[in-house]
Parts: sequence; C-alpha cells; structure tokens
Amino acid sequence: MKTTVTVPIPELPESDHHNCRALGQILDRVGDKWTVMVVGVLSRGPLRFNQMMREIGGVSHRMLTLTLRSLERDGLVTRTAYATIPPKVEYALTDAGSSLIEPLRALSNWAIEYRPVIDQARAEYDMRVI
Amino acid sequence: MKTTVTVPIPELPESDHHNCRALGQILDRVGDKWTVMVVGVLSRGPLRFNQMMREIGGVSHRMLTLTLRSLERDGLVTRTAYATIPPKVEYALTDAGSSLIEPLRALSNWAIEYRPVIDQARAEYDMRVI
Repeated sequence: MKTTVTVPIPELPESDHHNCRALGQILDRVGDKWTVMVVGVLSRGPLRFNQMMREIGGVSHRMLTLTLRSLERDGLVTRTAYATIPPKVEYALTDAGSSLIEPLRALSNWAIEYRPVIDQARAEYDMRVI
Repeated sequence: MKTTVTVPIPELPESDHHNCRALGQILDRVGDKWTVMVVGVLSRGPLRFNQMMREIGGVSHRMLTLTLRSLERDGLVTRTAYATIPPKVEYALTDAGSSLIEPLRALSNWAIEYRPVIDQARAEYDMRVI
C-alpha cells in the first residue's frame, strides 16, 4: 500500500494568482534586456533609430526594430515621422513608457550593485559542480 | 560622390556603456518571468519544490528545475537537503536574493497598474495594422 503524505499549503488569495499571470505576460516584454536599454536611452529624450543603435552597444538592426515595434504596440513608445528632407523619424517615450523608467532603474541599480556577488557565486558554483 | 551627414550624438560617459552591458547580462536572468515568480513565492519563506510548483501556476517541472538551478548558481537561492525520512529539500532566498524582492515588486506593481493601458494600446495598434 502506498502512503500519501499531505503537506498543508498556505493558500494564496485568488488575486495573487491573477496578478502572477498578468505580471508574467508583461514581464516577458518589459523585463527583456533590449526593452530595458531602449527605455534607458529614451529616458533622456527622443532619439532617431541610428542614434539608438549607437547608444545601445551590441544591438542588431533587426532586434532594435522588433523591440521598438513591440514597445509601440504596447503604447510605451511613439514613432513620429517628420516630413522634412531628408525625412526624419523620431522615437519617444509615452507617459506610460516614462513611468517604467523608475522601476527599471531600480532593477538596473540592483544589477550593477550585485554583479560582483553574482559573478563570485557563479565561479564558486562552477568549481563545485565540475 | 557620397554625402555623409554627421549627426552629433551626445556622448554617454564610459561607465554608462559598461553598466549597460552588466545590466543586460543580469537582466537576462532576473527579468525572466519564472525567476520573478520564484523570488515572489520564496519572499514569504522557504518552500519545497512541489509547493512552488503549486503556487506558481503554469510552470513546468523542467522550467522550475532550470530556474532554481540558475538562481542557485547566481547565489540568490539556497537548496538545503534535510536527512529526514522521507528526505526533505527546501529552497530559500539568500540575502542577495532577498534584496531582489523590492525592485521586482516595483516592476510587478507597475505591470499590474499598467496592464489595462497596455491591453488597450495593443488592441488599438492591431486595429490600425490589420
């Protein structure tokens, strides 16, 4: 006969489960490293595509295009085309996009502060496992 | 002859570029939706694997295993095996892991607050594009 041990699980309120899913969907978008960097460079003001390419080191043309399109779709970035010669297209944060600056800056500061701790932990872990 | 237009780019201080890369590497890890959820459920105290599975809706056994292993490697979560019968393995946040609770909570609160705005922006964008 099989013995089943029942472990009591503290129940989460329903709203927590709901928030978890909502959070997950949006985090998939805003927690993305290129999104964070785009919001970071646009926090100082509107920029053109090539300016962003240069300011964000290591981003490909394709990846920046996809990231900007997603941010535009989410209502976090606007794309404005000016009928000048040559034509000029500028990207800027919306109010909702600007409200992301603070939470992403907090996460960014955490990453900068804890990077040495993480690097050391990884080195130690890899020594133990190998 | 080709005409080159030079656009003056405001120079970022070197540390910004450096921080951008450091941030990117770590964001790839901590901005991940399952990482955020694991830190979230462990913020209330240590848990066993199956408890976490139940509290985080929709996470697969494999994904939770991989997420916990990465968090352990990064020094953000500990895995403690107790020599009881049956054996018991508990996961808990380290001090560094606990310091992630606040920034991730800020991002989580942002996601919950702005979810309706994002949902509406997406619906409007998709109407325009189709």
